[in-house]
Amino acid sequence: MKPTTFHHRVPFYETDAMGVVHHANYVRYLELARIAWMDDHDRPYREYVAEGFHFSTTRVEVDYRRPAVFDDVVEVTTWLDWVRGASLAMRYELKRGPDLLATGATEHALVDTAGRPCRIPAAYRGRLAALAANGTKRVRPPRER
Amino acid sequence: MKPTTFHHRVPFYETDAMGVVHHANYVRYLELARIAWMDDHDRPYREYVAEGFHFSTTRVEVDYRRPAVFDDVVEVTTWLDWVRGASLAMRYELKRGPDLLATGATEHALVDTAGRPCRIPAAYRGRLAALAANGTKRVRPPRER
Amino acid sequence: MKPTTFHHRVPFYETDAMGVVHHANYVRYLELARIAWMDDHDRPYREYVAEGFHFSTTRVEVDYRRPAVFDDVVEVTTWLDWVRGASLAMRYELKRGPDLLATGATEHALVDTAGRPCRIPAAYRGRLAALAANGTKRVRPPRER
Amino acid sequence: MKPTTFHHRVPFYETDAMGVVHHANYVRYLELARIAWMDDHDRPYREYVAEGFHFSTTRVEVDYRRPAVFDDVVEVTTWLDWVRGASLAMRYELKRGPDLLATGATEHALVDTAGRPCRIPAAYRGRLAALAANGTKRVRPPRER
Repeated sequence: MKPTTFHHRVPFYETDAMGVVHHANYVRYLELARIAWMDDHDRPYREYVAEGFHFSTTRVEVDYRRPAVFDDVVEVTTWLDWVRGASLAMRYELKRGPDLLATGATEHALVDTAGRPCRIPAAYRGRLAALAANGTKRVRPPRER
Repeated sequence: MKPTTFHHRVPFYETDAMGVVHHANYVRYLELARIAWMDDHDRPYREYVAEGFHFSTTRVEVDYRRPAVFDDVVEVTTWLDWVRGASLAMRYELKRGPDLLATGATEHALVDTAGRPCRIPAAYRGRLAALAANGTKRVRPPRER
Repeated sequence: MKPTTFHHRVPFYETDAMGVVHHANYVRYLELARIAWMDDHDRPYREYVAEGFHFSTTRVEVDYRRPAVFDDVVEVTTWLDWVRGASLAMRYELKRGPDLLATGATEHALVDTAGRPCRIPAAYRGRLAALAANGTKRVRPPRER
Repeated sequence: MKPTTFHHRVPFYETDAMGVVHHANYVRYLELARIAWMDDHDRPYREYVAEGFHFSTTRVEVDYRRPAVFDDVVEVTTWLDWVRGASLAMRYELKRGPDLLATGATEHALVDTAGRPCRIPAAYRGRLAALAANGTKRVRPPRER
């Protein structure tokens, strides 16, 4: 398992009238961290895009524990959970110093520019499988969708 | 169970370079539907806010099935799943005509303006409990957090 | 001059930690009103998009006078200011009841899907010119850009 | 005149279905650069906030010349244009390498937590005036508002 930690300084425009970061922005934070993980361990996401691929998001979950406020530096740590023939899953921890702010998980399906599901090319999948915390198998059966 | 359906016409600014609605926006759609549900069945959310309360979001999950595109009208149907002493949960279905686009679920804790958890005042809680699909009990044990 | 007024109810996610709508969202409000104007007076913007055109935004200005808050209904009135061979300009007034919240102006260039500037097809341009407050001529010389 | 350049790597979620950064996001880029400028030359904006002040945005203008795309690094250079008793103005250039993407300008009024205009405390104003490209005087008369 090879995690990456992305540092995000909270802009004012991500806060809401409760005085904290609006919860919808955390889904964006996961994306920022995912892109950084690909830079570090896979390849820049723009290379997938240049080849006509996207990792479409098929599931998001976030559990919120403590709020972040303007100008906090949020550390988003992410790692690859599992990879299958046409999809993969990431996990996330969001912290501010020692404080756990939130945890998250996402699932993604490889699609072409028309949005059709594609198998992950074998070369990429092998590389990804070697990085996955739970290899190519799932520890828990995913929900059927 | 008393659902509310909120209609949202997709603005161009919610699309992304895949040509579809960016997945993070669905978390905002859930909020729009939740506010409409409170208008219809509870009371306008601004009244909670005026009294110094917020329903802080403690968990979000979304499963994405089909993409929405610019100018689609997305129908977000939401209902109250359960209510407890200081928290409640909502469920969501997002459709475009007959097509199911996504499903979602959120959990919320009542907090004061300083962000401290509060018990839901008894009068509101009684009214909410009568609206909940699963009353004041949970059908599934929630994860400990 | 044929204006259109679009009503926008302020979602919580558009507020910021000052307790008001974050100023960047007003640029989105202008887009919502522009789309509504095209529905009413020109043709649905999705028809331009379906033909491979976009009205790319080349200039935005907003003057802010009074803040809007959560759950306000903002009325955005917009009209076509002028149209030229390959571009057009819109003007905007944002009100809440009798209160003027902001004024705005935008300019747009017609582009194809590759982003290249295009002349506005004559049939559309004629129709647009008839709608423009200042016809095909400008009352003030625009800044050279 | 003391400019600051802020580097912003374009996230996927800021792109739109034209395949480029949605124009409303540039207003956010200006804010990011402004905050960085205060860090470098004035003092961290969070210190104003901690004292109960905000620089409310009273005017925004952006001229767009070339689009930015996913994963571009946009360099936003900003400087203080002028400062008056209760307001100030910033200017901006957005570039990608040698290419000018956009220029912008904003005006801000100091307000308290209730949103009431305040005079900029003399000590801060003196420091700001020394940094302003056009000192405490304006080269062009601003529009009366």
